[in-house]
Amino acid sequence: MCAAPAAETGLQVQTTTARRDGGRGGRAGRSAREGHAIAQKPFRQPRRPYSFTEAVSADGLEAIHDASMRILEEIGIDVLHEEVKDIFRKAGAEVDPGSDRVRMDRGLIAEAIATCPAEFTMHARNPAHNVHFGGNSVAFAQMASAPNCSDMDRGRRPGNQQDFRDLVKLGQVFNIIHLSGGYPVEPVDLHASIRHLECLRDFATLTDKIFHVYSLGKERNRDGIEIARIARGVSHDQLEREPSVLSIINSSSPLRLDTPMMQGIIEMSRRNQVIVMTPFTLAGAMAPVTIAGALAQQNAEALAGIALTQLVRPGAPVVYGGFTSNVDMKSGAPAFGTPEYMKAAIVGGQLARRYNLPYRTSNTCAANTVDAQAAYESVFSLWGAIMGGGNFIKHSAGWMEGGLTCSFEKFILDVDLLQMVAEFLNPLVVDDSTLALDAIRDVGPGGHFFGTAHTQERYRDAFYAPLISDWRNFETWSEAGSPTAYQKANRLWKEALAQYEQPPLDPAIAEELDDFVERRKAEGGAPTDF
Amino acid sequence: MCAAPAAETGLQVQTTTARRDGGRGGRAGRSAREGHAIAQKPFRQPRRPYSFTEAVSADGLEAIHDASMRILEEIGIDVLHEEVKDIFRKAGAEVDPGSDRVRMDRGLIAEAIATCPAEFTMHARNPAHNVHFGGNSVAFAQMASAPNCSDMDRGRRPGNQQDFRDLVKLGQVFNIIHLSGGYPVEPVDLHASIRHLECLRDFATLTDKIFHVYSLGKERNRDGIEIARIARGVSHDQLEREPSVLSIINSSSPLRLDTPMMQGIIEMSRRNQVIVMTPFTLAGAMAPVTIAGALAQQNAEALAGIALTQLVRPGAPVVYGGFTSNVDMKSGAPAFGTPEYMKAAIVGGQLARRYNLPYRTSNTCAANTVDAQAAYESVFSLWGAIMGGGNFIKHSAGWMEGGLTCSFEKFILDVDLLQMVAEFLNPLVVDDSTLALDAIRDVGPGGHFFGTAHTQERYRDAFYAPLISDWRNFETWSEAGSPTAYQKANRLWKEALAQYEQPPLDPAIAEELDDFVERRKAEGGAPTDF
Repeated sequence: MCAAPAAETGLQVQTTTARRDGGRGGRAGRSAREGHAIAQKPFRQPRRPYSFTEAVSADGLEAIHDASMRILEEIGIDVLHEEVKDIFRKAGAEVDPGSDRVRMDRGLIAEAIATCPAEFTMHARNPAHNVHFGGNSVAFAQMASAPNCSDMDRGRRPGNQQDFRDLVKLGQVFNIIHLSGGYPVEPVDLHASIRHLECLRDFATLTDKIFHVYSLGKERNRDGIEIARIARGVSHDQLEREPSVLSIINSSSPLRLDTPMMQGIIEMSRRNQVIVMTPFTLAGAMAPVTIAGALAQQNAEALAGIALTQLVRPGAPVVYGGFTSNVDMKSGAPAFGTPEYMKAAIVGGQLARRYNLPYRTSNTCAANTVDAQAAYESVFSLWGAIMGGGNFIKHSAGWMEGGLTCSFEKFILDVDLLQMVAEFLNPLVVDDSTLALDAIRDVGPGGHFFGTAHTQERYRDAFYAPLISDWRNFETWSEAGSPTAYQKANRLWKEALAQYEQPPLDPAIAEELDDFVERRKAEGGAPTDF
Repeated sequence: MCAAPAAETGLQVQTTTARRDGGRGGRAGRSAREGHAIAQKPFRQPRRPYSFTEAVSADGLEAIHDASMRILEEIGIDVLHEEVKDIFRKAGAEVDPGSDRVRMDRGLIAEAIATCPAEFTMHARNPAHNVHFGGNSVAFAQMASAPNCSDMDRGRRPGNQQDFRDLVKLGQVFNIIHLSGGYPVEPVDLHASIRHLECLRDFATLTDKIFHVYSLGKERNRDGIEIARIARGVSHDQLEREPSVLSIINSSSPLRLDTPMMQGIIEMSRRNQVIVMTPFTLAGAMAPVTIAGALAQQNAEALAGIALTQLVRPGAPVVYGGFTSNVDMKSGAPAFGTPEYMKAAIVGGQLARRYNLPYRTSNTCAANTVDAQAAYESVFSLWGAIMGGGNFIKHSAGWMEGGLTCSFEKFILDVDLLQMVAEFLNPLVVDDSTLALDAIRDVGPGGHFFGTAHTQERYRDAFYAPLISDWRNFETWSEAGSPTAYQKANRLWKEALAQYEQPPLDPAIAEELDDFVERRKAEGGAPTDF
């Protein structure tokens, strides 16, 4: 086992953001003063250089497709929205009189989804934070929609505005978080009628990345679109040419499309904004206990929603979302990051590519604390998501307890995992310089490479420098108090928060945002009977 | 979020080994009485149903190959063994007079390795535990060669015979451990001259799986081969037809082949036993700081050793081993489970397949405790190993601290990870039954699948049942004392050890083994000046 001491090698790690004065002052003090004490790579979407992994054959894929078409043709789907039933009827669907059941044939689906864009770009108020969807691009979004949050110091608690803002700020600090996928935690201390206005203003001001609006009543979609437009300082026309907000649509599995979700598709697609159509098909509970069956159901529900986006506005940007996992058959509790989850994530990608659509998946776990389970379930999730071709990885950072809690420490742990995945997706360079024949010749049998020119020229950014991993030997680590990854993450989220800086915003835009939000609040916000 | 209570569903998990009396008695008592309290699948090697992931193009692969050939042709490799120098010289290599430097051209390598078998089977004393090497087969071997071991109760300590035996027993208990890759921990309380005799007898009696002999002097190889032969109860001829023991050969990077390792190849290959030729090429230390360069060096060292096996005995079974990782440039400490490690593991597989050889890789981490780091570094390692085409995954269970410690808890955690990987490699079945159209029809929009016949018929083994993952909700988990994965693993290794049963062995064979070992001990064992 080789472990040459630092004293021998004289090497000091230096990663991408220059920081040459690392020897002075305490770490926390430095963090606050320097603004970028936590070294990281610039904002950049990874691109997948590897071939996609496939978990079913071409025949198997067609069998799943065929089953999902038969579900829509023979069983149908309940649509709890009169206008949407009309839209489907006019497109040729059979709508049972006096019921919500809608049956559509495969021809309708094929014709409707033919207009979906295979790839598109979303526009942030900071154009450097635009995000590409589709192809080989990968985008990581922070965890969304947790009712609770937690950290090691303060424990687990219901979501609130302060924690919401802190987590949104963390999403802004880290370049590996490319956009927001919703409220990292639900701030239940804000009244539901005006919560979206406060939260959306926070997204538009505390961050300059793309954000999400919930489809919980059409007023919220409209407010979200308008806040994104004001924040970007663009016209209504330009906003429609340049999709700027996204909304997740979940079907109510099995086979039901609820009112606010249908309103969301109408409001968002009509304005050419992004819909991410994601059934949540838990095998053994709201979907068949067999993964193939759960995927057939997922596909039927997803394609019904995706078809609707195109019937509302042909060419509207839409993402195929897959979220099939299994339940614990002992308790009925959802499980995540399981082998079944991985396979479902991979087949979801095969389906999305079959329809030439960007693919959304997730980084999940069922753990209650930031232990080995949290880590392995998350990396297994990422394994399925990345090798399966995920373009938009939701819940990338912070997710715990099957989505019931957003953890500050898990957020940092996940940032490290995502940065590692991004580095893994960085193509391996093979050329004369990296093949290093001259260095090998110079060192020769029995030597070592620590002091060679080839090493000296490259060591600063030769390897990924982890946030969490403690690579000290056991004795040194023990003397330092045997810190766990959880404890290191606890220190790091505070450092990261201390170095947060609000991104610049034109004062006129800030004022316009405030005027809009205050007016809408004065009007009473949005109905709460969704 | 769906979480139907068990009371509603009436489902109880039952996995593969039948155990219907689960309600009676305490868990630990049950374990000891029933022998198989920890449910697991039967012994079976996974087969990879997915396409291999490739991290370099065909051109990139050829460039690495070419660089490695130039290393052997132009720089050469130091061989610290006169007989091996002679073997290489007779095969056409250029051997510097008065030095150990051996240069061989690509023609010699190509001709020599052309006789390597692409796949082969190793024979255990229990034929049900035979292991196939190569193709799409995957074999997991327990961690090997740790100087220390640890558990949560007793802390970290130097290896000793009791811990050695306990870890060997754990390797026998779990069906996902297909063979041994060496001493899980080095029993330093046994004198080095007779340590191999005691350890090999333990392997031959406490387990009925394939084991490894160290190449630390030819006497040890010979003793190991003879003990395997006696344990199997076969003739010398049959043993030569049916490879039964393996030995890992590490080059002394950079570019040196040491005496005991060369003796090992001669002894093992001459008897048609298995060599796993594995350079340990740490980029930035004993190999170039660039992964491509480290791989070129790995390939040169590996192919020199592999060529030697075939020059000793054409057709002798041999495995291409890859163990390229990077060091922490701050400290020089080896790092594991890094993005660089993953890419190197994947390219290693491409190289092995280029030469039509089985591929060995590893499940590693640098963590000092069984925390999130231990888990994510291990799963990243497995991601690279599995998608890269690893056939023989060494150090699969127990590895901590870059190999310096074998942890009882990490062993259990890894067993769970390996079982999940095996389940992930289980092909997804797509047919009328799994597509479940009738079940979806019966349940219809808005229903649920808990009580359906389709679910009832399948729920028992529909999903992987984890050893470690705690899927209880936060409240129930908190009431249970908020156990971590580490704590659960601590309980489980004790349960597993309690249910260990010594595999049957013909008393005549046991006596012959004892006679052999005692005779060799009386002779003084093996020299300790290797």
